[in-house]
Amino acid sequence: MTRTVLESKTKTVVIGFDEPFCVIGERINPTGRKKLAAELEQGDFSTVERDALEQVACGAMVLDVNSGAVFTNRMAADPRYADNNFVEPPLMRELIARVQAIVDVPLCIDSSVPGALEAGLEAAEGRPLLNSVTGEEERLELVLPLVKKYNVPVVAISNDDTGISEDPDVRFSVAKRIVERAADFGIPAHDIVVDPLVMPIGAMASAGQQVFALVRRLRDELGVNTTCGASNVSFGMPHRHGINAAFLPMAIGAGMTSAIMNPVRQVEMEAIKAANVLMNHDPNGSAWIAFSRIIDAVAEGASFPDAARAAAEAGGGRGGRRRRRG
Amino acid sequence: MTRTVLESKTKTVVIGFDEPFCVIGERINPTGRKKLAAELEQGDFSTVERDALEQVACGAMVLDVNSGAVFTNRMAADPRYADNNFVEPPLMRELIARVQAIVDVPLCIDSSVPGALEAGLEAAEGRPLLNSVTGEEERLELVLPLVKKYNVPVVAISNDDTGISEDPDVRFSVAKRIVERAADFGIPAHDIVVDPLVMPIGAMASAGQQVFALVRRLRDELGVNTTCGASNVSFGMPHRHGINAAFLPMAIGAGMTSAIMNPVRQVEMEAIKAANVLMNHDPNGSAWIAFSRIIDAVAEGASFPDAARAAAEAGGGRGGRRRRRG
Repeated sequence: MTRTVLESKTKTVVIGFDEPFCVIGERINPTGRKKLAAELEQGDFSTVERDALEQVACGAMVLDVNSGAVFTNRMAADPRYADNNFVEPPLMRELIARVQAIVDVPLCIDSSVPGALEAGLEAAEGRPLLNSVTGEEERLELVLPLVKKYNVPVVAISNDDTGISEDPDVRFSVAKRIVERAADFGIPAHDIVVDPLVMPIGAMASAGQQVFALVRRLRDELGVNTTCGASNVSFGMPHRHGINAAFLPMAIGAGMTSAIMNPVRQVEMEAIKAANVLMNHDPNGSAWIAFSRIIDAVAEGASFPDAARAAAEAGGGRGGRRRRRG
Repeated sequence: MTRTVLESKTKTVVIGFDEPFCVIGERINPTGRKKLAAELEQGDFSTVERDALEQVACGAMVLDVNSGAVFTNRMAADPRYADNNFVEPPLMRELIARVQAIVDVPLCIDSSVPGALEAGLEAAEGRPLLNSVTGEEERLELVLPLVKKYNVPVVAISNDDTGISEDPDVRFSVAKRIVERAADFGIPAHDIVVDPLVMPIGAMASAGQQVFALVRRLRDELGVNTTCGASNVSFGMPHRHGINAAFLPMAIGAGMTSAIMNPVRQVEMEAIKAANVLMNHDPNGSAWIAFSRIIDAVAEGASFPDAARAAAEAGGGRGGRRRRRG
């Protein structure tokens, strides 16, 4: 039974076929969040800290930490800041230190810059997830040695030097090749979490069926866990959250075991909690019953993050919020 | 490719692997609706008519018509009313006449009384669905000849003389036996819609996984369409609609092609419409886009049935409402 073990300083999270769906919070990511990038440039980590607390309260079991900021102002003063190899490693270290200081959940170290990945691996406590390797030759040669050296699991994205194929069979082959290359490095399949790449359904009508079929094959033929950027499926559609809230249970039913997503959304989190019950991954329905109290509080007028935070605090910080000591 | 063809006077609905999920409205059913049974006893069909219009407006493609009323007062005056074989056949005829007069969708004739089934078959225009046969010997012998004589499709419920098995393999065997017995009568598998029986998840933690696995087997091994009483899965759980709204997409992803359910609920209907998009059963997402206008209207304060009715009327009665002529 495939189990991918992640650890923070004191907590263990298992991604697996017989585990509740693993929600990886996506919000700590300055890529495409200009305001956050500008804050980070000024050394302001308040949004990062708030996002860390809020995502964990809402049910994130792992936090993605992406260091892909562009520091426009510093760049003008010092041309070295135009190079992400210069910007990201110290930023990743700082982000991880800030996040680890306030929440106790495993991290997902996310960068396109190998130096930032290694800086993250040095800074993270426990056993983080590395995000990501692809089937691109250069990336395989740079990332797999880090995965081996630090003995961590890794997200494998199924594109390669030819790009992202629209043919799911090609994407399966890319994933298979990454698993084989990892094996050459002594990395077991249970430490590879494959992202089969979710296309927008608005652009490709078969995108949903492709993913469901791919997830089943990845599980049955390669024995690997899977993840995805879940919200991508609804890009360009009206009422995206309604599409996402159906996609997630369908993907879970097909065997998907994690997603990198925004956990600060009731409708998607409710769909996942219900799918956990239906997959028999919520013993006695106790997580559903706890979540239903949050739904009740929202019905009475609370915001979802506030209701989730209140429930997490009432539950003795089981959500992974770090308690103050002394 | 399995296709079960249903017809009303002028409309055709196909239940099939490549079709949008078929929503069969369950509300015209006096079983467990005491108030409705009392109205019917007094010859009052206003609730039936309102339920017919409302369900069709909300997206029901087929209407279940169940004649299982108990006429307590008449029973006191005339002992013949204690016998459902006496009560149901004329009631079924009347129910069908009333419903057909105002909506133009195929019907699902639902009774435990063979005489009521035959009365319904005589009264229904087009090609109704018969609900139901089971694996019980007496039922097989009574219902299959009607199915053959009237050339209609039939719901096959996977229990038999030994009752409802908790073992999904036994329920599969019962379904298989019904399909084989039907074949002896010359009834093809594509005219059998199997209900694999959905257990409450609160009583049996594996109930969801059982259904998903059964639906796949029924489809792959017997080539039959499937249906279920969808809301049964959440019986006894808090926030049942949240469980139902995850169950339906998961069942659809596993291959379920119809459900007998309450269509006058936004959350479940939204989940089904989104699942249709994700299964590539909603060309150009046009049904989703139309539904999203209903969601908008609800967000602005309309009730779901009102918003759905307004949308159906604006769409030229495509929802199956019968236009007045002359």
